[in-house]
Amino acid sequence: MLTLFHHPLLPACRFVRLSFGEYGEELALIEEKPWLRRKEFLTLNPAASLPVLLAEGDQPIVGATVIAEYVDETRGVLKRDKRLFVEDPLARAEIRRLVDWYLVKTEADVTRHLVRERVLKPIMGSEYGGGAPDSTAIRAARANVKQHLKYTNWLAGTRNWLAGTRLTYADMAAAATLSVLDYMGEVSWGDYPAAKDWYTRMKSRPSFRPLLADRVRALSPVSHYADLDF
Amino acid sequence: MLTLFHHPLLPACRFVRLSFGEYGEELALIEEKPWLRRKEFLTLNPAASLPVLLAEGDQPIVGATVIAEYVDETRGVLKRDKRLFVEDPLARAEIRRLVDWYLVKTEADVTRHLVRERVLKPIMGSEYGGGAPDSTAIRAARANVKQHLKYTNWLAGTRNWLAGTRLTYADMAAAATLSVLDYMGEVSWGDYPAAKDWYTRMKSRPSFRPLLADRVRALSPVSHYADLDF
Repeated sequence: MLTLFHHPLLPACRFVRLSFGEYGEELALIEEKPWLRRKEFLTLNPAASLPVLLAEGDQPIVGATVIAEYVDETRGVLKRDKRLFVEDPLARAEIRRLVDWYLVKTEADVTRHLVRERVLKPIMGSEYGGGAPDSTAIRAARANVKQHLKYTNWLAGTRNWLAGTRLTYADMAAAATLSVLDYMGEVSWGDYPAAKDWYTRMKSRPSFRPLLADRVRALSPVSHYADLDF
Repeated sequence: MLTLFHHPLLPACRFVRLSFGEYGEELALIEEKPWLRRKEFLTLNPAASLPVLLAEGDQPIVGATVIAEYVDETRGVLKRDKRLFVEDPLARAEIRRLVDWYLVKTEADVTRHLVRERVLKPIMGSEYGGGAPDSTAIRAARANVKQHLKYTNWLAGTRNWLAGTRLTYADMAAAATLSVLDYMGEVSWGDYPAAKDWYTRMKSRPSFRPLLADRVRALSPVSHYADLDF
Protein backbone atom coordinates (compact mmCIF):
# COMPACT_ATOMS: atom_id res chain seq x y z
CA MET A 1 0.00 0.00 0.00
CA LEU A 2 1.34 3.45 -0.89
CA THR A 3 1.51 6.25 1.68
CA LEU A 4 0.08 9.75 1.26
CA PHE A 5 1.13 12.71 3.40
CA HIS A 6 -1.95 14.91 3.42
CA HIS A 7 -4.28 17.24 5.28
CA PRO A 8 -7.98 16.33 5.24
CA LEU A 9 -9.17 19.82 4.27
CA LEU A 10 -6.75 20.62 1.46
CA PRO A 11 -8.33 20.19 -2.02
CA ALA A 12 -5.05 19.02 -3.59
CA CYS A 13 -4.87 16.14 -1.08
CA ARG A 14 -8.53 15.22 -1.53
CA PHE A 15 -7.98 15.16 -5.29
CA VAL A 16 -5.31 12.46 -4.87
CA ARG A 17 -7.44 10.44 -2.45
CA LEU A 18 -10.42 10.55 -4.83
CA SER A 19 -8.27 9.49 -7.78
CA PHE A 20 -6.84 6.46 -5.96
CA GLY A 21 -10.36 5.74 -4.68
CA GLU A 22 -11.70 5.62 -8.24
CA TYR A 23 -9.04 3.02 -9.06
CA GLY A 24 -9.99 1.01 -5.96
CA GLU A 25 -6.54 1.38 -4.41
CA GLU A 26 -6.26 2.10 -0.70
CA LEU A 27 -3.68 4.55 0.65
CA ALA A 28 -2.03 4.72 4.06
CA LEU A 29 -2.74 8.30 5.17
CA ILE A 30 -0.40 10.36 7.33
CA GLU A 31 -1.78 13.73 8.40
CA GLU A 32 0.97 16.30 8.06
CA LYS A 33 1.01 19.84 9.47
CA PRO A 34 3.28 21.46 6.89
CA TRP A 35 3.67 24.69 8.87
CA LEU A 36 5.69 22.75 11.49
CA ARG A 37 8.32 22.06 8.81
CA ARG A 38 9.23 18.65 10.25
CA LYS A 39 12.77 17.68 9.29
CA GLU A 40 11.73 14.22 8.03
CA PHE A 41 9.03 15.78 5.88
CA LEU A 42 11.39 18.42 4.44
CA THR A 43 13.72 15.59 3.39
CA LEU A 44 10.87 14.17 1.31
CA ASN A 45 9.81 17.56 -0.02
CA PRO A 46 12.01 20.64 0.47
CA ALA A 47 9.07 22.80 -0.65
CA ALA A 48 7.21 21.61 2.51
CA SER A 49 3.96 21.47 0.54
CA LEU A 50 1.20 18.84 0.43
CA PRO A 51 0.39 16.30 -0.88
CA VAL A 52 3.40 13.99 -1.07
CA LEU A 53 2.96 10.39 -2.17
CA LEU A 54 5.47 7.73 -1.23
CA ALA A 55 5.40 5.65 -4.38
CA GLU A 56 6.97 2.29 -5.13
CA GLY A 57 10.32 2.02 -3.31
CA ASP A 58 9.26 4.88 -1.01
CA GLN A 59 10.17 7.40 -3.71
CA PRO A 60 8.50 10.72 -2.84
CA ILE A 61 6.27 12.22 -5.52
CA VAL A 62 5.48 15.84 -4.83
CA GLY A 63 2.35 17.78 -5.72
CA ALA A 64 -1.16 16.85 -6.80
CA THR A 65 -0.76 17.21 -10.56
CA VAL A 66 2.60 15.43 -10.55
CA ILE A 67 1.04 12.56 -8.58
CA ALA A 68 -1.93 12.46 -10.97
CA GLU A 69 0.35 12.09 -14.00
CA TYR A 70 2.32 9.36 -12.20
CA VAL A 71 -0.85 7.50 -11.27
CA ASP A 72 -2.04 7.72 -14.87
CA GLU A 73 1.27 6.45 -16.24
CA THR A 74 1.47 3.54 -13.80
CA ARG A 75 -2.23 2.68 -13.31
CA GLY A 76 -4.61 4.77 -15.42
CA VAL A 77 -3.33 3.57 -18.79
CA LEU A 78 -4.47 0.04 -17.84
CA LYS A 79 -7.99 1.04 -16.73
CA ARG A 80 -9.66 1.34 -20.15
CA ASP A 81 -13.06 3.03 -19.76
CA LYS A 82 -12.42 3.64 -16.04
CA ARG A 83 -9.33 5.73 -16.81
CA LEU A 84 -9.56 9.29 -15.44
CA PHE A 85 -7.62 10.60 -18.41
CA VAL A 86 -7.88 10.26 -22.19
CA GLU A 87 -5.63 9.60 -25.20
CA ASP A 88 -6.08 12.65 -27.41
CA PRO A 89 -3.47 15.38 -26.66
CA LEU A 90 -5.94 18.27 -27.07
CA ALA A 91 -8.50 16.60 -24.80
CA ARG A 92 -5.73 15.91 -22.28
CA ALA A 93 -4.86 19.62 -22.37
CA GLU A 94 -8.47 20.53 -21.56
CA ILE A 95 -8.52 18.11 -18.59
CA ARG A 96 -5.22 19.51 -17.31
CA ARG A 97 -6.51 23.09 -17.76
CA LEU A 98 -9.48 22.33 -15.55
CA VAL A 99 -7.40 20.54 -12.92
CA ASP A 100 -5.20 23.66 -12.77
CA TRP A 101 -8.29 25.86 -12.70
CA TYR A 102 -9.50 24.27 -9.46
CA LEU A 103 -6.23 23.31 -7.76
CA VAL A 104 -4.34 26.48 -8.69
CA LYS A 105 -6.77 29.28 -9.55
CA THR A 106 -9.73 28.50 -7.29
CA GLU A 107 -7.17 27.64 -4.63
CA ALA A 108 -5.44 31.03 -4.97
CA ASP A 109 -8.66 33.06 -5.31
CA VAL A 110 -10.80 31.30 -2.71
CA THR A 111 -10.01 28.01 -1.02
CA ARG A 112 -6.53 28.68 0.39
CA HIS A 113 -7.74 31.77 2.24
CA LEU A 114 -10.88 30.23 3.70
CA VAL A 115 -9.05 27.08 4.83
CA ARG A 116 -6.20 29.07 6.34
CA GLU A 117 -8.42 31.55 8.19
CA ARG A 118 -11.20 29.21 9.29
CA VAL A 119 -9.49 25.83 9.74
CA LEU A 120 -5.72 26.18 10.12
CA LYS A 121 -5.07 29.45 11.98
CA PRO A 122 -7.20 28.40 14.99
CA ILE A 123 -4.96 25.37 15.52
CA MET A 124 -1.59 26.63 14.25
CA GLY A 125 -0.24 28.37 17.33
CA SER A 126 0.91 31.96 17.17
CA GLU A 127 4.58 31.04 16.61
CA TYR A 128 3.56 29.47 13.28
CA GLY A 129 1.32 32.28 12.09
CA GLY A 130 -1.84 31.08 13.84
CA GLY A 131 -4.33 33.28 15.66
CA ALA A 132 -7.56 35.12 15.02
CA PRO A 133 -8.95 34.89 11.48
CA ASP A 134 -8.42 37.85 9.14
CA SER A 135 -11.94 38.96 8.21
CA THR A 136 -10.71 40.94 5.20
CA ALA A 137 -9.18 37.79 3.68
CA ILE A 138 -12.39 35.86 4.33
CA ARG A 139 -14.50 38.60 2.74
CA ALA A 140 -12.31 38.72 -0.37
CA ALA A 141 -12.42 34.94 -0.78
CA ARG A 142 -16.21 34.93 -0.37
CA ALA A 143 -16.52 37.57 -3.06
CA ASN A 144 -14.47 35.37 -5.42
CA VAL A 145 -16.25 32.09 -4.72
CA LYS A 146 -19.30 33.10 -6.80
CA GLN A 147 -17.30 33.35 -10.03
CA HIS A 148 -15.93 29.84 -9.52
CA LEU A 149 -19.33 28.34 -8.71
CA LYS A 150 -20.82 30.09 -11.72
CA TYR A 151 -18.11 28.66 -13.95
CA THR A 152 -18.63 25.17 -12.50
CA ASN A 153 -22.37 25.54 -13.03
CA TRP A 154 -21.75 26.50 -16.67
CA LEU A 155 -19.41 23.55 -17.24
CA ALA A 156 -21.81 21.12 -15.56
CA GLY A 157 -24.75 22.48 -17.54
CA THR A 158 -22.94 22.28 -20.88
CA ARG A 159 -21.18 18.94 -20.56
CA ASN A 160 -22.05 15.57 -19.08
CA TRP A 161 -18.89 15.59 -16.96
CA LEU A 162 -16.81 18.72 -16.50
CA ALA A 163 -14.23 18.02 -19.22
CA GLY A 164 -16.62 16.33 -21.65
CA THR A 165 -18.43 13.04 -22.06
CA ARG A 166 -16.59 11.02 -19.43
CA LEU A 167 -15.48 11.19 -15.81
CA THR A 168 -11.91 12.52 -15.61
CA TYR A 169 -9.35 14.13 -13.34
CA ALA A 170 -11.19 17.42 -13.98
CA ASP A 171 -14.19 16.12 -12.02
CA MET A 172 -11.88 14.90 -9.23
CA ALA A 173 -10.23 18.32 -8.93
CA ALA A 174 -13.52 20.23 -8.96
CA ALA A 175 -15.19 17.84 -6.51
CA ALA A 176 -12.18 17.94 -4.17
CA THR A 177 -12.36 21.74 -4.14
CA LEU A 178 -16.13 22.06 -3.81
CA SER A 179 -16.21 19.42 -1.06
CA VAL A 180 -13.87 21.56 1.04
CA LEU A 181 -15.96 24.68 0.41
CA ASP A 182 -19.11 22.70 1.18
CA TYR A 183 -17.64 21.38 4.46
CA MET A 184 -17.17 25.01 5.50
CA GLY A 185 -20.70 25.96 4.40
CA GLU A 186 -19.44 28.32 1.69
CA VAL A 187 -21.61 27.03 -1.18
CA SER A 188 -25.17 28.26 -1.73
CA TRP A 189 -26.15 25.28 -3.86
CA GLY A 190 -29.60 26.65 -4.66
CA ASP A 191 -28.04 29.26 -6.96
CA TYR A 192 -26.15 26.67 -9.01
CA PRO A 193 -28.54 23.84 -9.95
CA ALA A 194 -26.37 22.23 -12.65
CA ALA A 195 -23.34 22.26 -10.37
CA LYS A 196 -25.47 20.80 -7.59
CA ASP A 197 -26.70 18.00 -9.83
CA TRP A 198 -23.15 17.17 -10.90
CA TYR A 199 -21.88 17.35 -7.29
CA THR A 200 -24.68 15.03 -6.15
CA ARG A 201 -23.46 12.46 -8.67
CA MET A 202 -19.87 12.88 -7.49
CA LYS A 203 -20.81 12.70 -3.82
CA SER A 204 -22.58 9.38 -4.21
CA ARG A 205 -19.53 7.66 -5.70
CA PRO A 206 -17.82 5.13 -3.40
CA SER A 207 -14.53 7.05 -3.78
CA PHE A 208 -16.18 9.98 -1.98
CA ARG A 209 -17.19 8.12 1.20
CA PRO A 210 -13.93 8.58 3.14
CA LEU A 211 -14.01 12.34 2.45
CA LEU A 212 -17.53 12.62 3.83
CA ALA A 213 -16.29 11.07 7.08
CA ASP A 214 -13.45 13.61 7.50
CA ARG A 215 -13.61 15.93 10.47
CA VAL A 216 -11.17 18.64 11.57
CA ARG A 217 -10.75 19.97 15.08
CA ALA A 218 -11.31 23.66 14.50
CA LEU A 219 -14.54 23.43 12.50
CA SER A 220 -17.45 21.02 12.28
CA PRO A 221 -18.96 20.52 8.82
CA VAL A 222 -22.30 22.06 7.85
CA SER A 223 -25.22 19.75 8.63
CA HIS A 224 -25.81 18.64 5.01
CA TYR A 225 -22.12 17.93 4.34
CA ALA A 226 -22.39 14.13 4.35
CA ASP A 227 -26.00 13.90 3.08
CA LEU A 228 -26.32 12.44 -0.37
CA ASP A 229 -29.66 14.23 -0.67
CA PHE A 230 -28.90 17.83 0.28
CA MET B 1 3.44 28.23 -37.25
CA LEU B 2 1.74 28.15 -33.85
CA THR B 3 0.93 31.34 -31.93
CA LEU B 4 1.90 32.10 -28.34
CA PHE B 5 0.23 34.79 -26.25
CA HIS B 6 2.97 35.84 -23.84
CA HIS B 7 4.74 38.56 -21.92
CA PRO B 8 8.53 38.79 -22.38
CA LEU B 9 9.32 38.96 -18.66
CA LEU B 10 7.12 36.16 -17.33
CA PRO B 11 9.09 32.97 -16.58
CA ALA B 12 6.17 30.69 -17.58
CA CYS B 13 6.13 32.28 -21.06
CA ARG B 14 9.91 32.11 -21.44
CA PHE B 15 9.75 28.42 -20.48
CA VAL B 16 7.45 27.73 -23.44
CA ARG B 17 9.59 29.78 -25.84
CA LEU B 18 12.76 27.95 -24.74
CA SER B 19 11.08 24.56 -25.14
CA PHE B 20 9.91 25.27 -28.68
CA GLY B 21 13.34 26.77 -29.35
CA GLU B 22 15.05 23.53 -28.32
CA TYR B 23 12.87 21.68 -30.84
CA GLY B 24 13.75 24.21 -33.53
CA GLU B 25 10.14 25.31 -33.98
CA GLU B 26 9.39 29.00 -34.41
CA LEU B 27 6.37 30.61 -32.72
CA ALA B 28 4.37 33.67 -33.73
CA LEU B 29 4.48 35.80 -30.56
CA ILE B 30 1.67 38.10 -29.44
CA GLU B 31 2.46 40.23 -26.44
CA GLU B 32 -0.58 40.24 -24.15
CA LYS B 33 -1.24 42.55 -21.20
CA PRO B 34 -3.43 40.22 -19.15
CA TRP B 35 -4.48 42.93 -16.66
CA LEU B 36 -6.45 44.63 -19.48
CA ARG B 37 -8.68 41.51 -19.65
CA ARG B 38 -9.25 41.84 -23.41
CA LYS B 39 -12.50 40.18 -24.42
CA GLU B 40 -10.89 38.18 -27.23
CA PHE B 41 -8.23 36.92 -24.85
CA LEU B 42 -10.77 35.93 -22.17
CA THR B 43 -12.56 33.86 -24.80
CA LEU B 44 -9.35 31.88 -25.27
CA ASN B 45 -8.64 31.67 -21.54
CA PRO B 46 -11.28 32.68 -18.97
CA ALA B 47 -8.56 32.61 -16.29
CA ALA B 48 -6.90 35.54 -18.14
CA SER B 49 -3.47 34.08 -17.37
CA LEU B 50 -0.40 33.64 -19.56
CA PRO B 51 0.91 31.79 -21.51
CA VAL B 52 -1.73 30.58 -23.97
CA LEU B 53 -0.69 28.60 -27.04
CA LEU B 54 -2.88 28.44 -30.12
CA ALA B 55 -2.21 24.87 -31.17
CA GLU B 56 -3.21 23.02 -34.33
CA GLY B 57 -6.66 24.22 -35.45
CA ASP B 58 -6.24 27.34 -33.28
CA GLN B 59 -7.22 25.34 -30.19
CA PRO B 60 -6.13 27.30 -27.10
CA ILE B 61 -3.84 25.46 -24.68
CA VAL B 62 -3.64 27.22 -21.35
CA GLY B 63 -0.73 27.33 -18.92
CA ALA B 64 2.97 26.52 -19.12
CA THR B 65 2.90 22.98 -17.74
CA VAL B 66 -0.17 22.04 -19.79
CA ILE B 67 1.56 23.36 -22.93
CA ALA B 68 4.76 21.45 -22.04
CA GLU B 69 2.86 18.15 -21.75
CA TYR B 70 1.11 18.85 -25.08
CA VAL B 71 4.40 19.67 -26.78
CA ASP B 72 5.92 16.47 -25.42
CA GLU B 73 2.98 14.36 -26.57
CA THR B 74 2.91 15.86 -30.07
CA ARG B 75 6.63 16.61 -30.64
CA GLY B 76 8.90 15.50 -27.80
CA VAL B 77 8.19 11.78 -28.12
CA LEU B 78 9.68 11.90 -31.63
CA LYS B 79 12.88 13.71 -30.64
CA ARG B 80 14.85 10.75 -29.21
CA ASP B 81 17.93 12.06 -27.34
CA LYS B 82 16.82 15.67 -27.90
CA ARG B 83 13.56 15.09 -26.02
CA LEU B 84 13.17 17.38 -22.99
CA PHE B 85 11.37 14.65 -21.08
CA VAL B 86 12.08 10.99 -20.30
CA GLU B 87 10.26 7.63 -20.30
CA ASP B 88 10.50 6.44 -16.70
CA PRO B 89 7.49 7.53 -14.59
CA LEU B 90 9.56 8.28 -11.46
CA ALA B 91 12.08 10.31 -13.44
CA ARG B 92 9.18 12.14 -15.10
CA ALA B 93 7.82 12.96 -11.63
CA GLU B 94 11.18 14.48 -10.63
CA ILE B 95 11.25 16.64 -13.78
CA ARG B 96 7.67 17.79 -13.14
CA ARG B 97 8.48 18.51 -9.47
CA LEU B 98 11.31 20.84 -10.53
CA VAL B 99 9.23 22.54 -13.21
CA ASP B 100 6.62 23.25 -10.51
CA TRP B 101 9.35 24.35 -8.11
CA TYR B 102 10.43 27.15 -10.45
CA LEU B 103 7.17 28.07 -12.18
CA VAL B 104 4.96 27.79 -9.09
CA LYS B 105 7.05 28.06 -5.91
CA THR B 106 9.86 30.40 -7.01
CA GLU B 107 7.18 32.36 -8.85
CA ALA B 108 5.05 32.72 -5.70
CA ASP B 109 7.98 33.40 -3.34
CA VAL B 110 10.05 35.68 -5.54
CA THR B 111 9.56 36.29 -9.24
CA ARG B 112 5.90 37.33 -9.37
CA HIS B 113 6.47 40.11 -6.83
CA LEU B 114 9.64 41.50 -8.40
CA VAL B 115 8.15 41.46 -11.91
CA ARG B 116 4.91 43.06 -10.75
CA GLU B 117 6.55 45.80 -8.69
CA ARG B 118 9.51 46.59 -10.95
CA VAL B 119 8.25 45.86 -14.47
CA LEU B 120 4.46 45.80 -14.63
CA LYS B 121 3.19 48.38 -12.11
CA PRO B 122 5.12 51.25 -13.75
CA ILE B 123 3.27 50.63 -17.04
CA MET B 124 -0.10 49.31 -15.83
CA GLY B 125 -1.98 52.53 -15.22
CA SER B 126 -3.58 53.20 -11.85
CA GLU B 127 -7.02 51.93 -12.95
CA TYR B 128 -5.46 48.45 -13.38
CA GLY B 129 -3.51 48.40 -10.11
CA GLY B 130 -0.41 50.16 -11.44
CA GLY B 131 1.55 52.84 -9.63
CA ALA B 132 4.55 53.17 -7.34
CA PRO B 133 6.32 49.93 -6.40
CA ASP B 134 5.63 48.45 -2.96
CA SER B 135 9.03 48.36 -1.28
CA THR B 136 7.85 45.84 1.36
CA ALA B 137 6.93 43.32 -1.35
CA ILE B 138 10.30 43.86 -3.06
CA ARG B 139 12.18 43.38 0.22
CA ALA B 140 10.30 40.14 1.00
CA ALA B 141 10.97 38.74 -2.48
CA ARG B 142 14.67 39.64 -2.22
CA ALA B 143 14.89 37.83 1.11
CA ASN B 144 13.41 34.71 -0.51
CA VAL B 145 15.54 34.73 -3.64
CA LYS B 146 18.62 33.44 -1.78
CA GLN B 147 16.95 30.15 -0.82
CA HIS B 148 16.01 29.51 -4.45
CA LEU B 149 19.48 30.33 -5.76
CA LYS B 150 21.04 28.13 -3.07
CA TYR B 151 18.78 25.26 -4.07
CA THR B 152 19.62 25.75 -7.76
CA ASN B 153 23.30 25.86 -6.87
CA TRP B 154 22.95 22.57 -4.97
CA LEU B 155 21.10 20.90 -7.86
CA ALA B 156 23.63 22.17 -10.41
CA GLY B 157 26.55 21.07 -8.25
CA THR B 158 25.12 17.59 -7.67
CA ARG B 159 23.81 16.73 -11.12
CA ASN B 160 24.99 17.35 -14.67
CA TRP B 161 21.65 18.92 -15.59
CA LEU B 162 19.12 19.94 -12.95
CA ALA B 163 16.95 16.80 -13.10
CA GLY B 164 19.80 14.35 -13.76
CA THR B 165 22.07 13.33 -16.60
CA ARG B 166 20.27 15.03 -19.46
CA LEU B 167 18.78 18.36 -20.45
CA THR B 168 15.06 18.42 -19.62
CA TYR B 169 12.08 20.68 -19.00
CA ALA B 170 13.51 21.21 -15.49
CA ASP B 171 16.43 23.14 -16.99
CA MET B 172 14.05 25.14 -19.19
CA ALA B 173 11.91 26.14 -16.18
CA ALA B 174 14.90 27.09 -14.03
CA ALA B 175 16.62 28.99 -16.82
CA ALA B 176 13.41 30.83 -17.70
CA THR B 177 13.06 31.93 -14.08
CA LEU B 178 16.70 32.85 -13.49
CA SER B 179 16.86 34.74 -16.78
CA VAL B 180 14.05 37.01 -15.59
CA LEU B 181 15.73 37.55 -12.22
CA ASP B 182 19.04 38.18 -14.00
CA TYR B 183 17.43 40.73 -16.36
CA MET B 184 16.36 42.66 -13.24
CA GLY B 185 19.85 42.35 -11.66
CA GLU B 186 18.54 40.25 -8.77
CA VAL B 187 21.15 37.45 -8.95
CA SER B 188 24.55 37.76 -7.24
CA TRP B 189 26.14 35.05 -9.37
CA GLY B 190 29.44 35.13 -7.47
CA ASP B 191 27.78 33.44 -4.49
CA TYR B 192 26.46 30.52 -6.56
CA PRO B 193 29.31 29.18 -8.75
CA ALA B 194 27.68 25.87 -9.72
CA ALA B 195 24.43 27.64 -10.66
CA LYS B 196 26.46 30.17 -12.64
CA ASP B 197 28.29 27.44 -14.55
CA TRP B 198 25.01 25.71 -15.38
CA TYR B 199 23.37 29.03 -16.38
CA THR B 200 26.32 29.87 -18.63
CA ARG B 201 25.73 26.61 -20.48
CA MET B 202 22.01 27.35 -20.78
CA LYS B 203 22.59 30.92 -21.90
CA SER B 204 24.84 29.88 -24.78
CA ARG B 205 22.23 27.58 -26.31
CA PRO B 206 20.64 28.85 -29.56
CA SER B 207 17.18 28.56 -27.95
CA PHE B 208 18.22 31.30 -25.51
CA ARG B 209 19.14 33.93 -28.09
CA PRO B 210 15.66 35.47 -28.55
CA LEU B 211 15.31 35.86 -24.76
CA LEU B 212 18.60 37.74 -24.52
CA ALA B 213 17.26 40.24 -27.07
CA ASP B 214 14.06 40.93 -25.07
CA ARG B 215 13.60 44.43 -23.69
CA VAL B 216 10.72 45.88 -21.68
CA ARG B 217 9.76 49.53 -21.46
CA ALA B 218 9.87 50.04 -17.70
CA LEU B 219 13.27 48.53 -17.03
CA SER B 220 16.50 48.06 -18.95
CA PRO B 221 18.40 44.82 -18.29
CA VAL B 222 21.59 44.80 -16.21
CA SER B 223 24.70 45.31 -18.33
CA HIS B 224 25.80 41.64 -18.29
CA TYR B 225 22.32 40.29 -19.16
CA ALA B 226 23.12 39.31 -22.74
CA ASP B 227 26.85 38.55 -22.22
CA LEU B 228 27.70 34.88 -22.58
CA ASP B 229 30.81 35.55 -20.46
CA PHE B 230 29.49 37.33 -17.36
